[in-house]
Amino acid sequence: MSRNFKSDNVTPVSDAIMAAINAANVGTAGSYGADEHTERLRSVAGDIFGTEVSIYPVTTGTAANSLALSQLVPPYGAVYCHEAAHIATDECGAPEFFTGGAKLIGLPAPDGKIRPQQLADAVALALELGVHHVKPAAVSLTQATEWGTVYSVPEVSAIAAVARQLGLPVHMDGARFANALVHLGCSAAEATWKSGVDVLSLGATKNGALCAEAVVFFDPARAKDFERRRKRAGHLWSKLRFVSAQWLAYFDGGLWLDNARHANAMAAALARGLQGLDGVHLLQTVEANEVFATLPEATVAALEAQGFGFYRWPMPANGSSSTHPPGVAIRLVTSYATSLAAVQDLVAAAERCGQRLRGSGHDTDRVP
Amino acid sequence: MSRNFKSDNVTPVSDAIMAAINAANVGTAGSYGADEHTERLRSVAGDIFGTEVSIYPVTTGTAANSLALSQLVPPYGAVYCHEAAHIATDECGAPEFFTGGAKLIGLPAPDGKIRPQQLADAVALALELGVHHVKPAAVSLTQATEWGTVYSVPEVSAIAAVARQLGLPVHMDGARFANALVHLGCSAAEATWKSGVDVLSLGATKNGALCAEAVVFFDPARAKDFERRRKRAGHLWSKLRFVSAQWLAYFDGGLWLDNARHANAMAAALARGLQGLDGVHLLQTVEANEVFATLPEATVAALEAQGFGFYRWPMPANGSSSTHPPGVAIRLVTSYATSLAAVQDLVAAAERCGQRLRGSGHDTDRVP
Amino acid sequence: MSRNFKSDNVTPVSDAIMAAINAANVGTAGSYGADEHTERLRSVAGDIFGTEVSIYPVTTGTAANSLALSQLVPPYGAVYCHEAAHIATDECGAPEFFTGGAKLIGLPAPDGKIRPQQLADAVALALELGVHHVKPAAVSLTQATEWGTVYSVPEVSAIAAVARQLGLPVHMDGARFANALVHLGCSAAEATWKSGVDVLSLGATKNGALCAEAVVFFDPARAKDFERRRKRAGHLWSKLRFVSAQWLAYFDGGLWLDNARHANAMAAALARGLQGLDGVHLLQTVEANEVFATLPEATVAALEAQGFGFYRWPMPANGSSSTHPPGVAIRLVTSYATSLAAVQDLVAAAERCGQRLRGSGHDTDRVP
Amino acid sequence: MSRNFKSDNVTPVSDAIMAAINAANVGTAGSYGADEHTERLRSVAGDIFGTEVSIYPVTTGTAANSLALSQLVPPYGAVYCHEAAHIATDECGAPEFFTGGAKLIGLPAPDGKIRPQQLADAVALALELGVHHVKPAAVSLTQATEWGTVYSVPEVSAIAAVARQLGLPVHMDGARFANALVHLGCSAAEATWKSGVDVLSLGATKNGALCAEAVVFFDPARAKDFERRRKRAGHLWSKLRFVSAQWLAYFDGGLWLDNARHANAMAAALARGLQGLDGVHLLQTVEANEVFATLPEATVAALEAQGFGFYRWPMPANGSSSTHPPGVAIRLVTSYATSLAAVQDLVAAAERCGQRLRGSGHDTDRVP
Repeated sequence: MSRNFKSDNVTPVSDAIMAAINAANVGTAGSYGADEHTERLRSVAGDIFGTEVSIYPVTTGTAANSLALSQLVPPYGAVYCHEAAHIATDECGAPEFFTGGAKLIGLPAPDGKIRPQQLADAVALALELGVHHVKPAAVSLTQATEWGTVYSVPEVSAIAAVARQLGLPVHMDGARFANALVHLGCSAAEATWKSGVDVLSLGATKNGALCAEAVVFFDPARAKDFERRRKRAGHLWSKLRFVSAQWLAYFDGGLWLDNARHANAMAAALARGLQGLDGVHLLQTVEANEVFATLPEATVAALEAQGFGFYRWPMPANGSSSTHPPGVAIRLVTSYATSLAAVQDLVAAAERCGQRLRGSGHDTDRVP
Repeated sequence: MSRNFKSDNVTPVSDAIMAAINAANVGTAGSYGADEHTERLRSVAGDIFGTEVSIYPVTTGTAANSLALSQLVPPYGAVYCHEAAHIATDECGAPEFFTGGAKLIGLPAPDGKIRPQQLADAVALALELGVHHVKPAAVSLTQATEWGTVYSVPEVSAIAAVARQLGLPVHMDGARFANALVHLGCSAAEATWKSGVDVLSLGATKNGALCAEAVVFFDPARAKDFERRRKRAGHLWSKLRFVSAQWLAYFDGGLWLDNARHANAMAAALARGLQGLDGVHLLQTVEANEVFATLPEATVAALEAQGFGFYRWPMPANGSSSTHPPGVAIRLVTSYATSLAAVQDLVAAAERCGQRLRGSGHDTDRVP
Repeated sequence: MSRNFKSDNVTPVSDAIMAAINAANVGTAGSYGADEHTERLRSVAGDIFGTEVSIYPVTTGTAANSLALSQLVPPYGAVYCHEAAHIATDECGAPEFFTGGAKLIGLPAPDGKIRPQQLADAVALALELGVHHVKPAAVSLTQATEWGTVYSVPEVSAIAAVARQLGLPVHMDGARFANALVHLGCSAAEATWKSGVDVLSLGATKNGALCAEAVVFFDPARAKDFERRRKRAGHLWSKLRFVSAQWLAYFDGGLWLDNARHANAMAAALARGLQGLDGVHLLQTVEANEVFATLPEATVAALEAQGFGFYRWPMPANGSSSTHPPGVAIRLVTSYATSLAAVQDLVAAAERCGQRLRGSGHDTDRVP
Repeated sequence: MSRNFKSDNVTPVSDAIMAAINAANVGTAGSYGADEHTERLRSVAGDIFGTEVSIYPVTTGTAANSLALSQLVPPYGAVYCHEAAHIATDECGAPEFFTGGAKLIGLPAPDGKIRPQQLADAVALALELGVHHVKPAAVSLTQATEWGTVYSVPEVSAIAAVARQLGLPVHMDGARFANALVHLGCSAAEATWKSGVDVLSLGATKNGALCAEAVVFFDPARAKDFERRRKRAGHLWSKLRFVSAQWLAYFDGGLWLDNARHANAMAAALARGLQGLDGVHLLQTVEANEVFATLPEATVAALEAQGFGFYRWPMPANGSSSTHPPGVAIRLVTSYATSLAAVQDLVAAAERCGQRLRGSGHDTDRVP
């Protein structure tokens, strides 16, 4: 039983997806996407999203995000996103690289969800500076967010409405799109293009695939020359059938939704288990498959000592997210492969640590 | 008498500098810097800074800043600067362009001056994210700052000490370096390399030149291949003698310090005149040649109607600078060419407007 | 029996490599390379090359080449390579993208192998132009070459000696390195760092892997910050164990050499079979797993009609490779998965076509 | 009397242009182009070209060329130009930098003028490689060419017709446009947009200005966002009035044509004088203000010893321009400021050298 809650990318590959990879390994096939699996993916993706789409498989989320943004934004452009967006903090400047130097403008929001008015204000300020400032060029939403929350359909629509008015296309970083989707309970169409999303970075790797990400354009005209961008970034695979086969298995029979549903349920169970404990505070509503909480330092240390894997989460020193509860902030991530037993194991361990602390007269809330 | 306080770049060229340009216009000369004026500038700059320097004339501040940073920072690097730094907000992404995609990390500070601890904290946070985050690579200070304040020598030294410990070179954006220098009253050496500055973008255009900026390396070894960077950015002039001649005249007989001293004195006079007026609040200590103040909206509008030129200054909606006094924030800039009469003219006009307002029962502080 | 000779990337995955992928799919593992497979690869690669190396797995050859070059070359640099080098013609400008704009200088050579004197001359010409020209910064050799030939060890050494004298590091594009190595019959060490190669792009995908390429630095000091370059290009996999597992299986028991040996033998058999036919001319010595030949247009068309897959190969209109024999130039590629029966099938088909042509009084050599 | 024939950029500034700079130095003026001179330039440029144009003053030819190309070409694009084009060999990779990595495809042509069929062939080859190759995106012609020749109006039109058919915009590098124009004897309109040129880099610096280059768009719609490109490259001057004033003086009363006519006449005189001498061979028809010739090594050395300034010109080792006459190739450039006496002085010196050589039994044509 794994004690690794570090990320949903530490997991193995879903059996059905691995089976599909093996099944694709027969005979020769056209390279660079001229194969039957990739061909089939195009029509399957259309079914999934309820509209014709242009879908380009790649193999990392950073590639999907950066390629997507490079298609939307000129080198002198600005991308508006949450200040903690993955594209802004965890991709080592990939968006700047792929766009040729565009700037990410981070907007603060304690729940990870930017607000329409923030976008409008930030763009207005930029336009006031005219030619001396980068040109507002796109907005990027992370769904589910970096804080494990989920934009509702009306929330996405409201931001997209402002964006449309300002002439900005809307990008969605959907590294955990399936987790958001099962939370929302709506169709993939409603969660994306019907809400105003123009381009989606769709991830499967965190939800059971080996290496399957994709850029999905809801207006194929926006994908002009995208193939060359993918190629020159080294992201056009010669044996692309093996990525497309993963996608087909991922969508087949709703595997993607089943996997995400399970991951979300495990996060909910984890949150329920933890929030009853002394000295534990949930930092965010748990809507997808991530739990952010503060725990007493001693508890955190004890869990680490017992081999539980998770990240101590850096809380920004300035800005809006700063007034968090006492203790050490950590992030726990569940996945399709997380068992209920593993969740209970962690909760029980945290409880035992807390009891020991109180037994020793430790005032948990005083722990810095 | 000019009513234009918009910027120190609306001014004409100092007589001595224009004379030098005319004097340089004799016969043929080696192109691309192989001329006598440029040769002479190298030794004169050494005298000015009290050490051997590598100086590269260019013709805009944006070029000087961006070329300097591109020499210090890899494409996957981070530059720490004030959140309102010119490089971050007013150069249309030039640093990102020249560095190949490096990221500027803006640090808030109400007086425009970043603090050593902020730098240390921000770098520590970045390093925690490891390979997923851009690599801390340089710090950039604006001297005088965007808010018209001046880092003291100990302030620069303290930041540079932290930077050195972290392995980061220190860049100084000296678009208004002369204004800062006469405020400090120290030598150019003390204000730069003796305080830990590695590379200086030195500006003359705002202080009387036609088009004279320069990148100054205090360690010539840092300038390796810089010539090619300047060339490929289109900033190597064929008739460079005409830029170098400006620099020689600028330094000659202390013209640069005289010009800056006058500009600063005019700003001080303007501040003194305004701060006595009802409803006027200075936003910053006036240490160089810029005055930031809030005035009643009606006064601002009246001044504009009378042909006074200045910028209504956007105040950030979030962040540390937000709790400013009521009224409209404006920026007034003086220069070597600003006359005391022009300053008195503006103050008198503001006073008249204020009196009229009060006469009409207007509560100036209520103006939004 | 496959009639597809288009490329060695149309093949399926070697059984042993697919087995290794399946075997790696157990339990959680550290992401981004913090896993046991990747750890083990580091020491195995050292054994293979007979020296400590820094090896970075990626998943496309374009990524390996471009990342390697970006580590060696500044944005204002020049890379010297063969005019038909994959990096110059088949990667959609990836090297320019990753290096931030460096220039590839293509040198002509009819057999695909640049000569030491060409390099010396080209660099001398560049240096004469000084700051106005890109700076000579690296040389890149393709091994095996784009023309299916192989640089001998002394040939590599001679170029590397010139490069070292000029201060240029040597990159080797080893997309088909194993094919070259078994032809040379020397050790991997002799074929690379002992001959003066500094960085190797090592490919396995064309030789039996699913998606395994790597950048190998023979001097780990050259790899400084390379991790960040890989990350920001979107080429750092979260589930990297699945790439490293391919590499381990590839090297294990000499699979890589066995696969390459077979591919080369099939190309040799193909060449022998074709060169006896009327109207067929081999364009290059067959030293690896590619055959370039001219055939009568009617034969080529007939083979295409019978479902044989290969590329009609564009011959440069100008330059040194232009005086090729009459007919249509085609490229045939063999692989680890090519059967002798498939080779005989193609040769027999070509022979039949030729006989029919002669029977019909067609003068094969007149076909344009 | 100057013996400097190195370039037309070693010259001083035309009196009328320097006078205009001085005259512009009065009072304050709007910065960044919001001044009367720049305003006026817009309408004057329209008059000069006989159509509405968008004109953007910059101060180096490299900036003008690279900014223009960056507007026309995506990062994954190809620019077709002569193999010796200034953009390809003398701008240190600036086009690659500004475009974000586009590739220049150099086409050979002994007279410096590419042919329509060459363009068509090169594009066809590129398209055959599809997504693996950079996308044909623009053609760039140098007028007058790097070899001192001039494309006729029909020649430009024929290339532009091919380009239009292929969907490629046409850029003209007009660093010596005035010299070409007076040779052609047609209108500026006929030489540019009426022949199919879309964007012109127009130079004045080599023809009497201090620092005046410009990008001219004949279809203002093509200039979208160009202002931001100029800004972020550091090429938007704050005191732009001083560049625009040069342009106004340059066009005023036909100064530009007078200057160019004189420069061309001096080159013609030089060519006439030299071609009569023993051992001297003109390498190109002299149509603008440059003379390329081979002279005996001893003559060249003697001229250098006497203080004459010119470049020994590197002749390509491979390619079409290689079969030049014996001797040393040199380039001599005349300008608006070259006197007939200076030309006669050089010719006389060359003649004396030659006589001395023959007197000494030297076989001039044997000199390598």
